[in-house]
Amino acid sequence: MFYHVKELQYEAKVSRPDPVFAKKLQEVLGGQWGEMSVMMQYLFQGFNCRGNKKYRDLLFDIGTEEIAHIEILATLIARLLDGTPMESQLEAFNYDPALAAVLGGMNPQHAIVSGLGAMPADSVGNRWSADYIVASGNLLADFRANLTAESQGRLQVSRLYEISDDPLVKDTLSFLIARDTAHQNQWIAAIRELENKAQDVVVPTNFPKELQKQEVAYDFYNTSQGQSDANGPWAQGTAPDGRGQFRYIEQPFPYGPVPKLPLAPATVFNTPPKPLTR
Amino acid sequence: MFYHVKELQYEAKVSRPDPVFAKKLQEVLGGQWGEMSVMMQYLFQGFNCRGNKKYRDLLFDIGTEEIAHIEILATLIARLLDGTPMESQLEAFNYDPALAAVLGGMNPQHAIVSGLGAMPADSVGNRWSADYIVASGNLLADFRANLTAESQGRLQVSRLYEISDDPLVKDTLSFLIARDTAHQNQWIAAIRELENKAQDVVVPTNFPKELQKQEVAYDFYNTSQGQSDANGPWAQGTAPDGRGQFRYIEQPFPYGPVPKLPLAPATVFNTPPKPLTR
Amino acid sequence: MFYHVKELQYEAKVSRPDPVFAKKLQEVLGGQWGEMSVMMQYLFQGFNCRGNKKYRDLLFDIGTEEIAHIEILATLIARLLDGTPMESQLEAFNYDPALAAVLGGMNPQHAIVSGLGAMPADSVGNRWSADYIVASGNLLADFRANLTAESQGRLQVSRLYEISDDPLVKDTLSFLIARDTAHQNQWIAAIRELENKAQDVVVPTNFPKELQKQEVAYDFYNTSQGQSDANGPWAQGTAPDGRGQFRYIEQPFPYGPVPKLPLAPATVFNTPPKPLTR
Amino acid sequence: MFYHVKELQYEAKVSRPDPVFAKKLQEVLGGQWGEMSVMMQYLFQGFNCRGNKKYRDLLFDIGTEEIAHIEILATLIARLLDGTPMESQLEAFNYDPALAAVLGGMNPQHAIVSGLGAMPADSVGNRWSADYIVASGNLLADFRANLTAESQGRLQVSRLYEISDDPLVKDTLSFLIARDTAHQNQWIAAIRELENKAQDVVVPTNFPKELQKQEVAYDFYNTSQGQSDANGPWAQGTAPDGRGQFRYIEQPFPYGPVPKLPLAPATVFNTPPKPLTR
Amino acid sequence: MFYHVKELQYEAKVSRPDPVFAKKLQEVLGGQWGEMSVMMQYLFQGFNCRGNKKYRDLLFDIGTEEIAHIEILATLIARLLDGTPMESQLEAFNYDPALAAVLGGMNPQHAIVSGLGAMPADSVGNRWSADYIVASGNLLADFRANLTAESQGRLQVSRLYEISDDPLVKDTLSFLIARDTAHQNQWIAAIRELENKAQDVVVPTNFPKELQKQEVAYDFYNTSQGQSDANGPWAQGTAPDGRGQFRYIEQPFPYGPVPKLPLAPATVFNTPPKPLTR
Amino acid sequence: MFYHVKELQYEAKVSRPDPVFAKKLQEVLGGQWGEMSVMMQYLFQGFNCRGNKKYRDLLFDIGTEEIAHIEILATLIARLLDGTPMESQLEAFNYDPALAAVLGGMNPQHAIVSGLGAMPADSVGNRWSADYIVASGNLLADFRANLTAESQGRLQVSRLYEISDDPLVKDTLSFLIARDTAHQNQWIAAIRELENKAQDVVVPTNFPKELQKQEVAYDFYNTSQGQSDANGPWAQGTAPDGRGQFRYIEQPFPYGPVPKLPLAPATVFNTPPKPLTR
Repeated sequence: MFYHVKELQYEAKVSRPDPVFAKKLQEVLGGQWGEMSVMMQYLFQGFNCRGNKKYRDLLFDIGTEEIAHIEILATLIARLLDGTPMESQLEAFNYDPALAAVLGGMNPQHAIVSGLGAMPADSVGNRWSADYIVASGNLLADFRANLTAESQGRLQVSRLYEISDDPLVKDTLSFLIARDTAHQNQWIAAIRELENKAQDVVVPTNFPKELQKQEVAYDFYNTSQGQSDANGPWAQGTAPDGRGQFRYIEQPFPYGPVPKLPLAPATVFNTPPKPLTR
Repeated sequence: MFYHVKELQYEAKVSRPDPVFAKKLQEVLGGQWGEMSVMMQYLFQGFNCRGNKKYRDLLFDIGTEEIAHIEILATLIARLLDGTPMESQLEAFNYDPALAAVLGGMNPQHAIVSGLGAMPADSVGNRWSADYIVASGNLLADFRANLTAESQGRLQVSRLYEISDDPLVKDTLSFLIARDTAHQNQWIAAIRELENKAQDVVVPTNFPKELQKQEVAYDFYNTSQGQSDANGPWAQGTAPDGRGQFRYIEQPFPYGPVPKLPLAPATVFNTPPKPLTR
Repeated sequence: MFYHVKELQYEAKVSRPDPVFAKKLQEVLGGQWGEMSVMMQYLFQGFNCRGNKKYRDLLFDIGTEEIAHIEILATLIARLLDGTPMESQLEAFNYDPALAAVLGGMNPQHAIVSGLGAMPADSVGNRWSADYIVASGNLLADFRANLTAESQGRLQVSRLYEISDDPLVKDTLSFLIARDTAHQNQWIAAIRELENKAQDVVVPTNFPKELQKQEVAYDFYNTSQGQSDANGPWAQGTAPDGRGQFRYIEQPFPYGPVPKLPLAPATVFNTPPKPLTR
Repeated sequence: MFYHVKELQYEAKVSRPDPVFAKKLQEVLGGQWGEMSVMMQYLFQGFNCRGNKKYRDLLFDIGTEEIAHIEILATLIARLLDGTPMESQLEAFNYDPALAAVLGGMNPQHAIVSGLGAMPADSVGNRWSADYIVASGNLLADFRANLTAESQGRLQVSRLYEISDDPLVKDTLSFLIARDTAHQNQWIAAIRELENKAQDVVVPTNFPKELQKQEVAYDFYNTSQGQSDANGPWAQGTAPDGRGQFRYIEQPFPYGPVPKLPLAPATVFNTPPKPLTR
Repeated sequence: MFYHVKELQYEAKVSRPDPVFAKKLQEVLGGQWGEMSVMMQYLFQGFNCRGNKKYRDLLFDIGTEEIAHIEILATLIARLLDGTPMESQLEAFNYDPALAAVLGGMNPQHAIVSGLGAMPADSVGNRWSADYIVASGNLLADFRANLTAESQGRLQVSRLYEISDDPLVKDTLSFLIARDTAHQNQWIAAIRELENKAQDVVVPTNFPKELQKQEVAYDFYNTSQGQSDANGPWAQGTAPDGRGQFRYIEQPFPYGPVPKLPLAPATVFNTPPKPLTR
Repeated sequence: MFYHVKELQYEAKVSRPDPVFAKKLQEVLGGQWGEMSVMMQYLFQGFNCRGNKKYRDLLFDIGTEEIAHIEILATLIARLLDGTPMESQLEAFNYDPALAAVLGGMNPQHAIVSGLGAMPADSVGNRWSADYIVASGNLLADFRANLTAESQGRLQVSRLYEISDDPLVKDTLSFLIARDTAHQNQWIAAIRELENKAQDVVVPTNFPKELQKQEVAYDFYNTSQGQSDANGPWAQGTAPDGRGQFRYIEQPFPYGPVPKLPLAPATVFNTPPKPLTR
């Protein structure tokens, strides 16, 4: 069960209106790697966590914090939208090019749909989708997804930091960047613990190794002409799982034959090689 | 530029028709973590790769192999669909419960839409979406996404392996599981190289540390009552980036105030606290 | 069965080209609350209406009118797009900032995809989706959805009215705003009739009251710290259904225990608390 | 900012495994009208609420409760999935029709993707989308959306109640049905307050009436042949807003002319009536 | 403007309930090639049609008919859903395998969401999307899309005809199949007229031929090893546009160089080949 | 199985940065009719092709070429994005209207998400979806879809050609336009061969004609008032399939009755005409 306090986890102030930056900021609220994604991803992993009390707690701790990040960004966006022109706009396009550029560069839905409020969408207006998240039940696989999300997320906030020149907005972003530093470190720590416990790095660690086609499990196939990557640590030496040696296959070949599919029955009405009769 | 040979990279044989398993197998072809995702993800990362010749080559090598995996799975699905009943089905529901269960359990689009062919969709029929993939330009962030994809992918194929009892299908799956072992190891090796080169594990490694809100960059907030996770390596000790000590905050508090948003202008027609006049 | 006459239900004239406003106008054609939504929503409710001849007729009357509204808006958009520059555009960005703002502010698909025609999409380009509509078979639930749609729709057209300064476009919008007034009133009238007939306001009115957990059916839980809303009509007094008294619970507590989920079987390959053997 | 306690708001027990019902229950978790929708809808309305402290509090109170409902349903689904067969399944289809029906009727992603956990998706597997929600800034419009959501939601839970025969599951559902009773009543109370304050029922209440095409604002158009609905309260008498009399137009006619669109310029490459030269 | 009569364009009777077939029938109502698609596609092409009065009329004639087809199929589906079991279902899975197969094979949303009504969705539950349609402004391109839609549509209805054994349902399907015959013939006739008028078959016919890279405009590249298709009419002889000779290139080679992209600026935080300083 | 060479199939050079054109160019890479669509469409048709060796080869030849087109466009977009401003942008909106217009007109995700790389999305940011493609198993239906895709695709590239003034970009586009000429001709040639072999033009050609409702198979219904299209080749004369005469029905009438649906059972909780008891 959840509770809310009215205070924000961190300040969400702005120096002046900036509807164009509001549009961009949507990316880290409702985009593929935004706060809605990490919140939902961590909570679903938490709901589904079976028999691992401390990881379950970890997921709820970070997941619950992310709801607060949604709140911060939504507030920031609403404030950047204050002062958005809502009167006739054609004149601007005729006589005030700078204002016209603002009007052309903002998200029209911020005016028409949300009434100067944040939206559950990304910087080009795609609505948030649960396609963005995963909760597989395998914690190592999922913590890797979490580390990825925090990495992509911090990268995007850093880019936004660079293209902002509002010191108050930058201050809020510097908080989110720091929290992403914390979360990346935390997921890495958790991943290492899981890898150490399983003494393996290949997910799922408990699939019996002898059931995989062992002879191709450490091959590197050079399917793209040129060998610039032939000397990388992915193509030679002991693999990170410590159970095999990488093998660089310069000219990979097919193991299988040319496939031939039988005809479909006439009632499927696929194109027959020759006219069918019934 | 790309070339195709007619042979499959590996066998795609089946012992007998099984349209219900064909439906399930769609997950690893056209689902969130299926072969379409890894192929498109690696190729877009390759197309966009700037100034890192060996990583670019790496991305094209593995990305091009994944097209062949799409081909294998599509062929396998088409063969599992051979023999799917395409005549009147109501009788089955009335008199042949086992056949009825097959008809109820298969994907109707395999009969109606694709004519007994594979579809670019997952096991419940969601069409593949580029929402599933990422190519950010930051290789460390993206290789973590790649490792995640191979982890989730191998997990799903392993589960499918368990619920199949067709030895030929299992043989093909054992090939894909082995290749995912290779690819997980390869992305881990590449990630380690990037982390070593940057001497950092936090993406983006080149965002100036002094610009983030340093005082919260190693905090762990206990926002979910209960402290089962207080002793984990994510809550105490040196963080994996080696630049800070984790700090466990038992009772996290808000740094910010209760937000107050100003009213929108009357022309937005939001609900005013008291009737507006114009 | 349906018939079409070539005349528009109302004028769709424009004073001058305005591709930027054309982009915005897409919202009320193909957006979440646009005319495509109400048309499809009412017609599907009509198709599925069982044994309520007069409501079925009502749904077809309004639903059929909405197809005409789609036609009006599509025509208006096509005319606003007349005069859209289709020659080389880089010069504009270099030398004519006002034109550049227009080119930057318009929807590129109006030029590239639809050839200066309206699109089944919203103001940021999201294609219309049947996710936007509902037809549940319960008329009270659905008429509430209809009232919502007309409310959101009239709100959006009103906002567009304010940011237009083309008197002919405003004239067309004033027609649509008036029709939304009619439709809001009409759905309210129908809702009241249904509520009166059922002598209840809680959907579904015919679910046996004794089967719900009666003791929490009128509670208000103060899960967000602060009691600004404690004196509202939703927190005290008789509930609108006349069957209970609201109860304000200042400190809501969980009724349930901490959930514990059993482990998944080994063949699911979830992360086990300790290494599994098979 | 948000906090979590480990206890569930209400019990989420099951009498026995039932993966087929787990699939159905997804509808009210991650479907169009599920708990994810109401949670996100209320919170976004709360984040964006301007200058209405008590409504803002109201939105956070109910919105925060809904996160707990997500948690209850996710737990219930995970428990219904316990005992899902994860071994070879073809035998079932051959020899055990009842088991085969279960396997055919369950959601394959519960086994392959989520590892016996709940998913952010509906009962046919569509992932949750922010297309489902709205936060317009106009509280009357939005509270109508909220009432609609609680109406559709309670309807769906009631239907699920009827097709369940597990007394423990039914007990949990009876809790959710009761809470939806409370929430419907609460939104109705809030709607009435807003309507009373504005002395109007037509959203937006503050759009100047004289700017709408007044002469069609109370017409009812009989565009669907047959007059079964001619005597309804939507077609005659005073309209609910008290500002006009409904007028039943038996034979509605177009106000506008046949539209004629000019040709597009040659550089658009639309089909010209006669060959173009450049 | 549009009008509706209450009668169906054709009968929509069923012999007996069949919720499993109702699910399948959704494909041709709300699927990629269903009646919703052709209706919306033809009407949008009509709305946007510029200066071609007779083609505009053609589009409205067929487009308006398609709304009636939606009505027929929605009615048919609602009737097939009559008699769907809505009481407790677990017993069926335990004791009545045939009923269990029906329950497993039907679309759960037909019970939970639409209350035994048709949905704007396909046979696996994907909601209809405007992604399925096109209206480009170029009539030849669009009529080819229309012919495609009628071809795929008639194919799907034919497949459904084969797997139905209800003579009344088959009768309705035979009507739709016949209308698709008419429409295919009609679009072919219109396409031929446009091709004849333009004396060309390549869309857009009015793009200046000299501006395309003429030397590759008739090449066939053998990028897939093996020459089974080398003798087809697509690889040799005069091309259908009569303006060139096909040329079979057995070993196609790249015309371009290996691409090299410059580094991104440091503020993008892409992975640099060597550590950056600022 | 597939192989890659590092060289591009054709040059992808640019004269100067142009992030606004980069945004537009996304349409033909990741839009409905972009290169991702044709690649996936042809390859899936190839994978599923049953027993038609030469058509299978044809599909792989063209499908494999299309991967190279994705590569060309992705490279072109990445180069157009070079030089995109990534520093503080508010100043531009205040003082440099031309730069502001560029910033307003570009896709913000090119900066924030992809780090100056191409995205699998269209010109307004919709991510590519497999909703765009088809592989039905019926080659005539599918080749018509292929011809449509090449027609729409060449149309869009032609429009982009007109609005570019970069001679190097135009050169690349002229290559793609030429290849679309080749592919349109090739699909037409293949379609004609299939039609000739089947001696029919109506898909599926092998559905028994006597099973369709023959009496309406050549009717043209004038459902849109006005007879501008009455004399077209679609309304009179012999139909293209040579098996019937078109019949123009000036006043089309319904063949069916007014539908009446029975009530749903009480447990569905649909709105009953009169209160139900249980």
